[in-house]
Parts: sequence; structure tokens; C-alpha cells
Amino acid sequence: MALNSLNTATPVGKTKSGSLAHYLPFLNWLVNYRREDLVGDMMAGLIVTIMLVPQGMAYALLAGLPPEVGLYASIVPLIIYGLLGTSRTLAVGPVAIVSLLVATGVAPLAETGSGEYIRLAITLAFLVGIIQLVMGLVRLGFLVNFLSHPVLAGFTSAAAIVIGFSQVKHLLGLSMPSTEHFYEQVFYAAANFTASNPVTVAIGLASIVVLFYFKQGLGRQLKRLGVAEPLVVPITKSGPLIVVLGGTLVVWLFGLNETAGVSIVGDVPAGLPPLSLPYFDLSLWEVLLPTALAISFVGYMESISVAKSLASKRREKVEANQELIALGAANFGATFTGGYPVTGGFSRSVVNFAAGANTGLASIITAVLIGLTVVFLTPIFYFLPKAVLAAIIIVAVVGLIDVAAFKHVWRYNKADAASMIITFGAVLLVGIETGILVGAAAAILLYVWRTSRPHMAVVGRLGNSETYRNVLRHQVKTCPHVLTIRVDESLYFANTKYLEDTVLQMVADRPEVKHLVLIGAAINFIDSSALETLESLISELRDAGVEFHMADIKGPVMDRLQSIGFVDEVGNDHIHLSVHDAMQVLNCT
Amino acid sequence: MALNSLNTATPVGKTKSGSLAHYLPFLNWLVNYRREDLVGDMMAGLIVTIMLVPQGMAYALLAGLPPEVGLYASIVPLIIYGLLGTSRTLAVGPVAIVSLLVATGVAPLAETGSGEYIRLAITLAFLVGIIQLVMGLVRLGFLVNFLSHPVLAGFTSAAAIVIGFSQVKHLLGLSMPSTEHFYEQVFYAAANFTASNPVTVAIGLASIVVLFYFKQGLGRQLKRLGVAEPLVVPITKSGPLIVVLGGTLVVWLFGLNETAGVSIVGDVPAGLPPLSLPYFDLSLWEVLLPTALAISFVGYMESISVAKSLASKRREKVEANQELIALGAANFGATFTGGYPVTGGFSRSVVNFAAGANTGLASIITAVLIGLTVVFLTPIFYFLPKAVLAAIIIVAVVGLIDVAAFKHVWRYNKADAASMIITFGAVLLVGIETGILVGAAAAILLYVWRTSRPHMAVVGRLGNSETYRNVLRHQVKTCPHVLTIRVDESLYFANTKYLEDTVLQMVADRPEVKHLVLIGAAINFIDSSALETLESLISELRDAGVEFHMADIKGPVMDRLQSIGFVDEVGNDHIHLSVHDAMQVLNCT
Repeated sequence: MALNSLNTATPVGKTKSGSLAHYLPFLNWLVNYRREDLVGDMMAGLIVTIMLVPQGMAYALLAGLPPEVGLYASIVPLIIYGLLGTSRTLAVGPVAIVSLLVATGVAPLAETGSGEYIRLAITLAFLVGIIQLVMGLVRLGFLVNFLSHPVLAGFTSAAAIVIGFSQVKHLLGLSMPSTEHFYEQVFYAAANFTASNPVTVAIGLASIVVLFYFKQGLGRQLKRLGVAEPLVVPITKSGPLIVVLGGTLVVWLFGLNETAGVSIVGDVPAGLPPLSLPYFDLSLWEVLLPTALAISFVGYMESISVAKSLASKRREKVEANQELIALGAANFGATFTGGYPVTGGFSRSVVNFAAGANTGLASIITAVLIGLTVVFLTPIFYFLPKAVLAAIIIVAVVGLIDVAAFKHVWRYNKADAASMIITFGAVLLVGIETGILVGAAAAILLYVWRTSRPHMAVVGRLGNSETYRNVLRHQVKTCPHVLTIRVDESLYFANTKYLEDTVLQMVADRPEVKHLVLIGAAINFIDSSALETLESLISELRDAGVEFHMADIKGPVMDRLQSIGFVDEVGNDHIHLSVHDAMQVLNCT
Repeated sequence: MALNSLNTATPVGKTKSGSLAHYLPFLNWLVNYRREDLVGDMMAGLIVTIMLVPQGMAYALLAGLPPEVGLYASIVPLIIYGLLGTSRTLAVGPVAIVSLLVATGVAPLAETGSGEYIRLAITLAFLVGIIQLVMGLVRLGFLVNFLSHPVLAGFTSAAAIVIGFSQVKHLLGLSMPSTEHFYEQVFYAAANFTASNPVTVAIGLASIVVLFYFKQGLGRQLKRLGVAEPLVVPITKSGPLIVVLGGTLVVWLFGLNETAGVSIVGDVPAGLPPLSLPYFDLSLWEVLLPTALAISFVGYMESISVAKSLASKRREKVEANQELIALGAANFGATFTGGYPVTGGFSRSVVNFAAGANTGLASIITAVLIGLTVVFLTPIFYFLPKAVLAAIIIVAVVGLIDVAAFKHVWRYNKADAASMIITFGAVLLVGIETGILVGAAAAILLYVWRTSRPHMAVVGRLGNSETYRNVLRHQVKTCPHVLTIRVDESLYFANTKYLEDTVLQMVADRPEVKHLVLIGAAINFIDSSALETLESLISELRDAGVEFHMADIKGPVMDRLQSIGFVDEVGNDHIHLSVHDAMQVLNCT
């Protein structure tokens, strides 16, 4: 396999910005569309539909919206993303965390399920569309890198717990007051456990068991039974559909909604999505803005992570800023067709990929099938118990709680593990939006803290080579009158005092030293605070009879030092290209 | 001068923690006190008193407190600092920025100058004492390093402007409503300019002229006239005293307070400071906490900066955590003797140093002289016009506006200049406490942003040396099948995607490359996000037929990579001690 494949297989990433195909990525696959791509696209489109119908309704329930809103959000946004997105396998639509954020943001402003509530959710989709579009156009896609993996992992695990517990009331058939903190839900459920509806509980638990069986045991059994490979994925992924149909049948046959008080979905209007408009009210937008920002950011994070990871498996590339534009446009689509905020979902995208999606056409096929569903099949869902939808959500989010990731990070790096724990705890205790902000801030502060006490090594010559390494780790040669120190960090405000104190201490401990050589191999920049400190360090050393040298300073750092006159201050003959040069000049080889 | 001097001249910094002299630094100078130290200490003590009497009253006015409070805060706190502080020349007492913070924090809670107002200021001193003491005991002194020089410079300049404009009402003899934003004061003064008291304006402007003359022209003239050197400093520093006496005389002689409505200080009670107590009220403490934190932090910053800079001039050392303890204790002293929050002041400390202060005794002498002043001399201040005190404050803060520092930083580093401008603007527009927080956050985010797109260089061999440098900057040898990349940054979450994208692009642009060598000389750590990215990068390169090598990885980084099994993944033979080693193995020398 030639390296060129990196080039030829990444048409999307390589399109010149400004070209038409850059802004309309579907042109890339449309002009080269082959008949054999169609089988995979159709298969993937169908399987994702089977997952998306129950999930769409379930996530709408989680967001406090009527079930049809989840289906509406799964039509036009998917077509738009299929045309504008740079990922060929991303499955856009309602997702759990975004749905939870919608509920958190809208619930204080209107009664759950009311017309006002729905229109507020639509307004959120509108704001998210604007934010993502603007971020994409001004090329802020890189911002996503400021959230570290541990923070994201901590956030996802905590959000999964919050989401899971938010469904306990449906599972128990309790009508519970909405609360600010998730643990209040837990307390309430525990205190009112005896009031739960036993039939509802039975349906919910049975659904959970079936769903877990489809997710874990069934695949192996099918293979053992010799079922053809291409059939295994569709069957194992139809778990949600099976429990929806089963639950509906049971309730309908025994009239459980009336005889046993099982809470059901009820009327789901038939027909294509209605045209809808957001509220145009600046003061309301201001109230919704924090939630809209959180959804834009978190939604984009989830989407880009899965898109990138799937693309790299097939040597395709996703383009961060175009992804923001595509997701923003998809949210506009949701706005005007009765939906609510959408993004690329993790599990459905993986299924889409595994089922063989080759191009954005898979997404468009899913949209058409969901369209047919809302036109013809909604009466089926009348008797669907809400406990089944709750079970679907719970099983979906349990897999997001990632204990192994935590153990791995803990073993590698305690600071990263700390930021993970802080994010996890903050999301659970303070709330989902503040939690992720706290986590992001903690990660950045831990990073600054880590760089504020840089590793510093005294180095010496390794054998007869020109390599100079830490005297504590290697058998090296040094000479008493020269102290050669490598600072393993850029010099900036947070570590400049530490550097000064440590160097002065090192020199004070070695009265025989006449020359100090500071190695710049690991110094990537020197900010103005550090520059001041270096100047005072040099004069302190001079007063103490020690000459200051620098070696192995990088080009960009040197340019700056030269421009400000620092090089003249140190003396041009005290600045050496390499450590070895310095040692030769100082008679220490 | 031997290097040992760094050792012997730093008795304070070198005392073992746990020893008595560590916690009671005055023992260090007391046991070695020489008679010749006394002259300098007495002279400095006297000169600082001459400055401090008018400044203390002026800063109390700025804080919205009666003038005697400023004097009370200049007695016991000075004695306590003299005994506990590690700086021998720091002059503690009321300072401008802390006084402004007191006014900002207390004004919304009580009527200016009322008994309640005073007791709230005392409570602030109590809280500041607790905070600084705790910070010192848990060794948080290093936190001060997280404020960069540009942020501090921007903060100081903006605070000087806010302070200066807060005195315009006294200078014009206007009674102005207290406002939230400093620019409202400016608008109000401009709009009501015609209502100002002309006699007050005349006194104020005359004081300003005299003060500037004492500050700038007088010293030169005295020297030209042949005045003995030791007398020059006392005379030039007595400007405030002169305008206080002159202004008082003029008002008293012509009865200007009655005939012309000049606002005067009025009765200043005679006698030693009263015993006083803070409010013990948790909910009130909660309200005052943000202000107390700001005072603790900003006060400590101002104090430690001047203490360190003066100490280094005499090869003494200040110990950050003991300084916090000493300042905290000084604030306790202020709490119980009718004072308000204090810290080490910049200008008075410089004068103390220049006037020859040798030990903490200078501080104690100042305290005794101020004590004598409040017992015997307060009747003198009855006719003192407030405009004179305003003039003293304005002249003191004008010097803090540092345009040269801004120009210097701008020339060296635009990101540092940006954080300076942001801090400056935020303090002026949003307020003094929020402003410094915004500035500190901006500096940290700019730093993260800077490290998020690291400099990366392709390197080659320099002549026949073992030195490998940037191909764009040096005449070096490379070979087509090996790509050697130096990344000039630690690898962590903010730059990991950038690294992956850039490396893949570089490899894609060079189809002939079979080996990629990543140089770790500038990589000081690899966090868990970056580790994941490296793993996926390696597998992507492997799929493209490129082998991944690492060279010159530092000890601490290597230890971690080894512990997590990453080294086995890369292959032990693909990790090289130096770049030159790698090149030899890859036949590229």
C-alpha cells in the first residue's frame, strides 16, 4: 500500500477551500457513485431506521417533548447533513445528552409537553443552528480540542447516570416532580418506591432484559446457529423495535392502560412534519443562550469524535469547520420542520458504519423511511408504554459509563484522572452545563499547575558522543566549573519564579561553578514575564561571579530574544548553537 | 566575590522550616543587631512617618473612612510585620488599591463614614487576616505566580485611573453620588463642573503643583545648591507633609471652611487606637468574601513584588509563605485596633529602603512615631482641606500608569500585550475585582492557545556533527526515506489533534518516506489524550507503510510510556536515545 493512499483516499479533506465541493461535500460522492455502493447504503439506511424510530421517540420523552417531535427531528436534518456533512457514515438525529440539555434548559420556562415548551425547544434548535454555523464560518472548529479526553469521559459517564435516573420515574410508573438535581430524583424514587405501578415495572424490567440480551448474548448465539453474517447486525440491532412492538402488543391485548394504569404514549399525529417557527424574542434568546451554547458545544463534540474515529478507519477525513456548518444547517432544518436540536449520535453512527454505509445517501434513505413511518405507522404507537421507551434509554446510556477508561487514565497520569473525577463529580452535583465548564477549567488549571514546576536536569556528556543527558540517569562526564542545566518547559509567568529560585539554589550549592549554561532544547517560548526574570537572574549571577550562557536555543525563540536586545545583553559569544559547542568553548569536553 | 555569598547573605531564606527563627524572623536581625544599623533604621523610620501621616489619612478618605482610621492602621500592623516579616525594608500600612477595594466592597452595605461602615471595614481586615494566614500556613504562596507581569501591569494602570478619578469630586468640592462604574464619575464631574467650588479647586491644584515639584524638580535643584546628600531624600519626600501643613494654614487663617465652603477633615479624635471587634456573622462574611479574597490576593501581590525586588538588591531573601503569615497577622492587628486592611506599599517601601532601613526596627520606629502623632498632633488636622488629601492620592497614583511597560511588551510579544490590554479594559469597564479575574483567565487561555498549535520543524544533520536542526533555517543533510520531525511542545489535549493532522499531512506530501522519527527533546510530558492520539497515529502510519520511531525522549516521559505498555507497542528497537542514533540505525548519516 503506497503512501499516496493517504492522499487519494481523502478527497473531502483535500478539497481546496473555496471550491464548490468544499461547501457541498456530497458532490464528492455523487459524481463517483457506483452501483455497488447502493447495497451498503440501503442496508445501513434501513437498519438505522429500525434503531431510530424507537430511539427518536424515547429521546423526545427524555427531552420532555411529545414522541412525534423526535421523529420529525429525524427527517429533514438527516437529509441536510447527508448533503453538507464531510463524514459519510455519521448518523444525525436526536441523542441522549442533547435531549437532557433541552429538558434542563426549557423545563424552568414552560410546562412539560405544552405548545410553548415545544416552541421553546424549536427556538433552541434555531439558536444552536446559528451558533454552529457561525463557529464553522469563522473557523472555530479547533476550539473542540480544548476539551481533554478525560474531561469528556468524565462528562459522558456522569451524564449517562443523570439520564438513566431521569427515566426511573417512567420505569416505576411514578409521576415525579421535576427537580434541579439528579440525586433528588433518586431520593424521591426511593421514598415513593411502594407507590410504583407493578405492571409498569414488569414491562420495563422485561424490556431491559430483552434489550440486554439483544445487545450482548444474541449475536454470539446467532453465529453459533450458523445465521448468515449480513443478517446478524440487523437482527441484533432490532432489539428496541422488538420491545416497542412487544410492549405495545401486550398493553393493547390486555388493555393494561385502563385495567392496570400503565402510562402509554397515546395519540401520535400522522402526517409529514408541520412547518414551524422559533420565537423571535431577544430577551428570550438571552435566557436560552447558555443552554444553546452547551448544546452546540457538547453536540459538536459528540459528533466530531465519532465522525473522526469512523473516518480514520476508512482513510477518509472529516473537516472540522465544515462539520460545524453541516450540523448548524441540520439544526436549522429541525427548527422549521417541528424538530428539536440534533447532532451526530455515537451508537447509531457506529451501526451505520458497520451496516455498510458508503455515502451520505444512507442518511437520506433513513430520512425517507422515517418520513414513511410518520405518515403511515404512527397509529401503531398509541399503546406503546412509556416504560419501554425508558428501558431503551437506560440500556443505551449504561454503555456510556466507562470505568475501564478511568482505571487506564488513573494508571497513566494522576492529573488527568483528577480532571476526570472533578468533571464527573461536578456534573452530578452541580449540574450538566456547569459541570462541563468546571471540568474544562480544571483540566486547564491542572495543566498550568503541572508546567509551573518544570523538570530541571543537570546534564553531562555521554561517552564521546555529542549527546548530553541527565547526570542522575546516565553515566556522564561533567566538569566542576561549568553547570549545565536543561529546563524541560517553556518559560512563562507560571514557572518563572520557580526557575529563578531553583537555578540560584543550584548555583549556591556549587561554589566552584563559574559558568552556567541554560539548555533551550525544551524551551519553546519565553514570555515577557520570563524575560524579565531571566534579566534579573543574569544580573544576580553576574554579581555572584557566574557567567550566564545559553545553548541549543530554537530559531523562533532566538528571533524574539534578538529583536528585544536580549542577545546583546547576554553577549553574542555566550550564546551557543549546541550544548557541545558551549562545552568546547568552556573547555569542558 | 565568592558564590558562597549567595548562601551567607540569605539568612532568612535559609532558616530551616520548623526552627524558631523561621516563624519569628526578627530573631535573625535582633541577635546580630549592630549599633551602626540604628542610624539607618531611625532615619528611615522618621522619613516613612512623614510620608505615612498624610498618606494614611488620604487613603482612609479613598476607602470612605474617617482619617484617623488610616492612622490607626499604621501603628500595630507595622509592629507585627516588623517582627514577623521576612523583608527588612517593606513598609506596611494603608495603600491605594486596597483602599479602593475596601470602598468598592463596603459602600453598597452601609453609609459612608458611618459606624457600621467602619466596622465592616474592620471585618474585612479580619477576613483578610484569616485568608492570608491560612494561605501561608498551607503554603499557597506560589499561587501568586499564576498572575503574569502583563496582567499585573494592566491591572495597576487601570486601578490608578479608577483611583485618580475617584478623587475628582474632592478636588472640585462636589458631593457626588457613589456609582458603580468609574466612567459615570467622569460623566458626572463633567456635567456638574460649573457647580464646583473655586477655592477648593485652587487649593487642590496648588497642592498638585507643589507635590509634582517635590517629586521631580526639587531633588535636582537641591543637589545643584549643594545640599548634603542625606538631606535630599527627607526633603523631597516631605511634599505631602508640606501641602498638608500649607493647606491647613491657609484654611485656618482665612476661615475658608466657613467663608468659602471648603470641605475640611474636621475633628480627628486624639489618643491611641481603640480596641475594636469585627462582626461575627457568617452570612455577612459570605457577602464580604469576594472583596476579602481580592484584597488578600492583590495586597499580597503588591507586597511580595516590592519585597522581592528590594531584597534581591541586598542579597536578602523573602519567603513567600512566611510573608503571607506576617501580612495576615498584621491585618489581625488592624482588626483589633480600629484599623482597616493593610499591606506592603510600593512607594513607601522604596523610600524606606533608600533612606537606609536595615531591619524591621525601622518599621517599629515608624509605628511609634505615628502613635505619638495620634496622641498629640490630631488637633492640627482639623482645618486640613480634603482637596489636599485628594491631591496627594492623585499624584501618588499617576506614577503607576505605565505606558512604557505596555510598549515594551507589545514589541516583544503580542499575546502578552493582549492579556495586558484585556486586563486594563476589563478593570475599567467591568470593575476592579472582576477585571483582574478576567485578565488572569485571559492570560491562561492565551497560553493554552499558544501551545495548541506547536511549532514543528523537519530537521537534518548539521555538517558532520551530531546536531540536527531545522531544514528551513540551516544548511543540513536529510535523506528521502526518513522524515525527522521535532515538535516544540509538550503533547497534551489542546494540541494533540493538530499534531496528528500535521504529521499525517507531512507524510502524505512525501510519498517516498518509510520511517518517521519523532524527536522528543522538547516534549516535556504526554498526557492521556495525547497518548491516545499517538496510538491512533501509529496505526494510521502503519497502515500507510510508514514505521514510527521516537528519539531523544526524556527520562520522566519515557518512564510513563513504559509503565503503560506504550513502549512495547512502538517496539523497543524503534525508540532511540538520540536523533543521531536513530539516523545511524536507519542508514541516514
